[in-house]
Amino acid sequence: MSPAARPIDEYRAFYRDRRVMITGGLGFIGSTVAHHLVALGAKVLIVDSLIPEYGGNLFNIAGIEDRVRVNVADVRQQSTMNYLVRGQDVIFNLAGQVSHIDSMQDPYTDLEINTRAQLFILEACRRYNPSVKVVFAGTRQVYGRPDTLPVTEQHLVRPTDVNGINKAAGEYYHLVYNNVFGIRACSLRLTNVYGPRQLIMHNRQGFIAWFIRLALEDREIQIYGDGSQLRDFVYVDDAADAFLRAGAIDGSNGEVFNVGGMEPIAHRDVVELLISIAGTGRYRFVEWPPEKKAIDIGDFYADSSRIRCTLGWQPATPLATGFRRTVEYYRAHLHHYLPAADSPVSAL
Amino acid sequence: MSPAARPIDEYRAFYRDRRVMITGGLGFIGSTVAHHLVALGAKVLIVDSLIPEYGGNLFNIAGIEDRVRVNVADVRQQSTMNYLVRGQDVIFNLAGQVSHIDSMQDPYTDLEINTRAQLFILEACRRYNPSVKVVFAGTRQVYGRPDTLPVTEQHLVRPTDVNGINKAAGEYYHLVYNNVFGIRACSLRLTNVYGPRQLIMHNRQGFIAWFIRLALEDREIQIYGDGSQLRDFVYVDDAADAFLRAGAIDGSNGEVFNVGGMEPIAHRDVVELLISIAGTGRYRFVEWPPEKKAIDIGDFYADSSRIRCTLGWQPATPLATGFRRTVEYYRAHLHHYLPAADSPVSAL
Repeated sequence: MSPAARPIDEYRAFYRDRRVMITGGLGFIGSTVAHHLVALGAKVLIVDSLIPEYGGNLFNIAGIEDRVRVNVADVRQQSTMNYLVRGQDVIFNLAGQVSHIDSMQDPYTDLEINTRAQLFILEACRRYNPSVKVVFAGTRQVYGRPDTLPVTEQHLVRPTDVNGINKAAGEYYHLVYNNVFGIRACSLRLTNVYGPRQLIMHNRQGFIAWFIRLALEDREIQIYGDGSQLRDFVYVDDAADAFLRAGAIDGSNGEVFNVGGMEPIAHRDVVELLISIAGTGRYRFVEWPPEKKAIDIGDFYADSSRIRCTLGWQPATPLATGFRRTVEYYRAHLHHYLPAADSPVSAL
Repeated sequence: MSPAARPIDEYRAFYRDRRVMITGGLGFIGSTVAHHLVALGAKVLIVDSLIPEYGGNLFNIAGIEDRVRVNVADVRQQSTMNYLVRGQDVIFNLAGQVSHIDSMQDPYTDLEINTRAQLFILEACRRYNPSVKVVFAGTRQVYGRPDTLPVTEQHLVRPTDVNGINKAAGEYYHLVYNNVFGIRACSLRLTNVYGPRQLIMHNRQGFIAWFIRLALEDREIQIYGDGSQLRDFVYVDDAADAFLRAGAIDGSNGEVFNVGGMEPIAHRDVVELLISIAGTGRYRFVEWPPEKKAIDIGDFYADSSRIRCTLGWQPATPLATGFRRTVEYYRAHLHHYLPAADSPVSAL
């Protein structure tokens, strides 16, 4: 039975014995997808550069390390990509430079990873594996500051930082290669994903993981402005489920999908919930730092009805449940996620 | 009097003794802007790589060659850009890889020129000339296949080829550098520009210039499908006027503007008008070549009301007038625009 004819709820069976490659597979979301795939019987190839401070962490595959293959490689290395894509049934393409802040200080590295290397991967598929399916990890960052809420996929793409621009270009490549060259591909525009295995070593990859670390260490969380800004949050297992559906169901081909949370919540309420669940931490309101205000986007929350209609996905994990699991995970494994004593970020 | 306080119709006086740099200044539109600027008393620095077959042509500055400076350089050369931007009041940023077809065969070169080099130019401004104004030559190609007509700037950016993606990213950089770093910048999304000085050496930079050459040489023009597709056309002097306004008027900062034609016209009617004005040429309907159909966008015409309201611009040259001037120009100067006998495209 072809994937197109398969009922939506059978997408999990699709992965038995499938060859699946995950770029960025030692990172937060990529490794979570790997855990799911191993449980479903897939043959998983993890590709990760393990660049320090980017998010790749060998501890993220603890428990499945004997049931996956790990190939340390950088997606910017074209001939390596040409080799690795061969024979794969599905590629979950999550390798990326994630920090908005870093992208404004070094736009070229962000461009190389988030844009140029995406061309490498897609060209590799076109030449060496044109029947593969590729699912790209997009981002809500491509929308910039919303004109209307909740944000649908019809909203203008209008990024407010270099990272958002480069991710948008990387996403567009996937759609053009789907439409022009027949490389089946789609993009998931993730909002704020949180949960176990996220990088909490430094504060340059978004605020939620950093807040979790501060709460766990009983430190002070700084909330910019009055904390009334709304965001939506997706638990990482829910995000991984969106990848699994998109990879198995051909109705996703050529599409972009918002992957958003259950309901919007204000920054200050997120922090209060987190602190109450952790039982540690405190918070204080502070002025917006100007360089952060310059690329801030105000309220944001996504309308995820397109992915619900097309792939049957919806967020399943309430924020309180997700926070409880996350706090429990880091309480057990925190030292695997803190910088080594000789790291430049160890003083944070 | 600051530019912001200046009445819109005084934008031409703004350029007297201004230092103005034009990247791609030996190309079709860039050189036309240079002719206007010289007439207005500006100090013009033309930067052009003169890459064969890209469109740069020293004959394009015939008549003003003693009143401009020409610096042969490639925008991909970062340290050169760091030097050249210094002291300029305005940069008209038109250097680009223009061919959609080429971008699908060599996406990397297109990325280097249309995306990465744009970062070089903007970073150079940020570090060495933060008070400059930059006007970027964008393209209607970023919209892809329209959902609604006429296309406004509120239409989704959804390119159908690699060139459109890379141009979109280059444009977004200009807006982010305006908003975050205060480098005043805007983008003009040009539709089909035509007129004297356009590359007609080969057929990979759009159909209108190629049709003009075929008509002039009394050859057969092939119209794909039934020729009912609608397009709008802008005469090059009108396009140049849009650049002049955008460079002088600060109301353009941070904005994108469609620069479209007077009214849409079907392909077959364009061809009939051209042939009747030239008095030479003929046409025939042919099947769509599949690789062209794959990146075709159907009907397209732009709504230019935003630039009319903000900068007072509107197209002034009817298509028949523009075609007459164009035919006259190439009849006088055709040999300057044909490939040399030893060129790979001389057999076209």
